[in-house]
Amino acid sequence: MIVLHGYTGSGNCYKPALAMRQLGVDYQWREVDILKGESRTAAFLAKNANGRIPLLEVEPGRYLAESNAMLCYLAEGSALLPVDRWARAKVFEWLFFEQYSHEPFIATIRFWVAIQKSAEAQAAKIAEMRPKGYAALGVMEARLATSAFLAGDRYTIADIALYAYTHVADEGGFDLAGYPALRGWLARVAAQPGHVTMAEAAAR
Amino acid sequence: MIVLHGYTGSGNCYKPALAMRQLGVDYQWREVDILKGESRTAAFLAKNANGRIPLLEVEPGRYLAESNAMLCYLAEGSALLPVDRWARAKVFEWLFFEQYSHEPFIATIRFWVAIQKSAEAQAAKIAEMRPKGYAALGVMEARLATSAFLAGDRYTIADIALYAYTHVADEGGFDLAGYPALRGWLARVAAQPGHVTMAEAAAR
Repeated sequence: MIVLHGYTGSGNCYKPALAMRQLGVDYQWREVDILKGESRTAAFLAKNANGRIPLLEVEPGRYLAESNAMLCYLAEGSALLPVDRWARAKVFEWLFFEQYSHEPFIATIRFWVAIQKSAEAQAAKIAEMRPKGYAALGVMEARLATSAFLAGDRYTIADIALYAYTHVADEGGFDLAGYPALRGWLARVAAQPGHVTMAEAAAR
Repeated sequence: MIVLHGYTGSGNCYKPALAMRQLGVDYQWREVDILKGESRTAAFLAKNANGRIPLLEVEPGRYLAESNAMLCYLAEGSALLPVDRWARAKVFEWLFFEQYSHEPFIATIRFWVAIQKSAEAQAAKIAEMRPKGYAALGVMEARLATSAFLAGDRYTIADIALYAYTHVADEGGFDLAGYPALRGWLARVAAQPGHVTMAEAAAR
């Protein structure tokens, strides 16, 4: 059975778990406490030299890192990853947007504020990063004003990837009031068949 | 013909250009001077709301952002992107590693040092980011000590993506002396059929 090494409350870990639930793929969640440095031990580094979670163990000893690579791997051949070349390209575009323009600001601020409780120590960085997080939300809002889902009219792994940290952006102090199309999309994603919450996804 | 909107000297813009040269895809390079804010004009934002280059115009008015999404799009069906599900997954893993753990440190420091000439003003940030850049090079070194190319024994878009900024990391002050496997890989990538330099890729 697939083992997902992850930290409960991590949006990156939530992504492959949610995809597996919706794809009907069974998995076992194995908790890695990043606050205790468990992703930086020699044992863990032997599995992923980059020292990060999530880590997908597709069979004993065979590891895949990078949450969005997991989404591509898991969704291949399913409706969550279109076959059409252009539609696929747009899915990839959103996946890379998420890791470069969204996650480093929205997920990082949430981590400091809600998980590590270090907002005061990180105040200067948060102030610098906050506008970049809102800029990413603005790019999503513009797209979702004219499209039901990010990559087109169907739910794909692009939506899973962006939902992971957008739906908890408020925990990092982001106010979504001015993003009505984005809030409508959050509701549509949460209403997808097989959708589970972050906590449910980790309880396996 | 495909139009690549890019900035000469940008590794991200080099990636799709190099892939197109090696795939025999004709393209026209259209210069966007990011130092003059040309990627943030209203006209450019109408093409890419995220205001970034490169931007691939696959046909008039049809745009794809995100350099690594372009690589996936362009390489589909070629030897640069394996068909085997696991081999593909490992390519994706490196592509996301590049955008999250490598580019933000190695490319950004090089930009400040060699392009924007703002190293002095950015000294504190550079000092904080430098070890993260070396950590990424360390992950690559560990992999390349036992593998000819990043995703396996064949040259793929994973190598193009990581080559783009690794081969000019020295311009940002990174010393590759302690990374012999990585240096061997740089030479192997540069020896691939159809390889062109960053300047050659932009001269089209």
